[in-house]
Amino acid sequence: MTERDSSMGGLYLIPTPLGDQDPSEVLTPHVLTLVQRLRHLVVENEKSARKFLKAAAPLVPQSEWILYPMDKYTDTEALKSYLEVCTKGIDLGVLSEAGCPGIADPGADLVGYAHQRQISVYPLIGPSSLLLALMGSGFSGQRFVFHGYLPIDKAARKAGIKQAEKTAQTAGETQMWIETPYRNLALLQDFCQQLQETTLLCIACDLSLPTQWIQTKSIGLWKKTDAAFLQKRPAIFLVSAGQLKRKDFSF
Amino acid sequence: MTERDSSMGGLYLIPTPLGDQDPSEVLTPHVLTLVQRLRHLVVENEKSARKFLKAAAPLVPQSEWILYPMDKYTDTEALKSYLEVCTKGIDLGVLSEAGCPGIADPGADLVGYAHQRQISVYPLIGPSSLLLALMGSGFSGQRFVFHGYLPIDKAARKAGIKQAEKTAQTAGETQMWIETPYRNLALLQDFCQQLQETTLLCIACDLSLPTQWIQTKSIGLWKKTDAAFLQKRPAIFLVSAGQLKRKDFSF
Repeated sequence: MTERDSSMGGLYLIPTPLGDQDPSEVLTPHVLTLVQRLRHLVVENEKSARKFLKAAAPLVPQSEWILYPMDKYTDTEALKSYLEVCTKGIDLGVLSEAGCPGIADPGADLVGYAHQRQISVYPLIGPSSLLLALMGSGFSGQRFVFHGYLPIDKAARKAGIKQAEKTAQTAGETQMWIETPYRNLALLQDFCQQLQETTLLCIACDLSLPTQWIQTKSIGLWKKTDAAFLQKRPAIFLVSAGQLKRKDFSF
Repeated sequence: MTERDSSMGGLYLIPTPLGDQDPSEVLTPHVLTLVQRLRHLVVENEKSARKFLKAAAPLVPQSEWILYPMDKYTDTEALKSYLEVCTKGIDLGVLSEAGCPGIADPGADLVGYAHQRQISVYPLIGPSSLLLALMGSGFSGQRFVFHGYLPIDKAARKAGIKQAEKTAQTAGETQMWIETPYRNLALLQDFCQQLQETTLLCIACDLSLPTQWIQTKSIGLWKKTDAAFLQKRPAIFLVSAGQLKRKDFSF
């Protein structure tokens, strides 16, 4: 077995709440204890990171946190330099703005550089809107694909939707997307226009929050649904052909 | 907004530990409180469910749990009949053997029938080996696909690996598989034979357990790695072309 150098610090990927919740509602005591122990963190957004840390580790003075920015202006060399603390034997945390670092959020590059330098990586248990949406959809979790955002360009968007429906039908693969919340209704409209009446669509909003709302129906039924409530709420969209579900089980 | 009937019970999807851990190590106090309140559960495996319940809700006598089997012998009508308790206003839980119900595990069909009957579905936060592996790999979480198991047939297996590498290269999509633990070494050998030297492979074993082991390297380096330790440990395999990572960020 390839052993890593135990004198090195590790890289800890810390999930954060998906909305305005206390961290103790969505994280295990184990993860909270870890956060209280760390002092160095790479963060997507300093303001939301400080708010999270204040709630998760109220006994640690804010001045003790050393935060390193990770956003679209952070270049490769800066990201790599953050890992220096690990080579000094200090553990480093990673926080994205909401949910799991590296999943539909920044963080993956930093993890890649950690592997290059033989730094151990510790992904931690916590909220992920994608995973919760997939569980809650009733669609196959035996085979699925997350496409990120659909293209804005109308023709490419239409082609993306059509291609995904075809894959759902032929391969029984659940298709997933995320959308900028103010565009949710436009996306639902696109799905209603492009997909067959019997294709199933799940919309999962406000996951893990008190206002959580998850519904799966055929496109035929979605066309008759007043979906104004969807606007501006963080949502995951999932599409399934439906028919292959039972066959697709592997116990 | 489409409201569901609040006199109905809900369907709660409860993640379970990925190994021989106490539920309190991997679940939030919120989820544990919920488990202690439920009495009706649909379970993949009665023995492991009883062990979980004993640890998660030690004050509830075992005789109080009403367990409904969900395995390959359970037909559609039986699954649907389990939801009767929800129509009586009673909450129903779902437990798979390890990890999240419905994700590379049974449970999705039951959720689908719940949606058909307007029963609210509550996916809960907890351990998922797929999600932890993706976070820990350093590969793109902006676009990814989970294929389940590769085919056993040699030609189909080779074609599946080749096709996945092509998609990783052209679409920048992370490719993921699960394998039966005693076949891990054979799968690694197949990847080493079929993939290009520079393609990146991550193997993530024993996720969330004290023996967790996650490493990402090029196929060239995997060929030089003694991987005997992999055998019989639950693992997720991930493949990425690597190059597209930075471009692929969407902050």
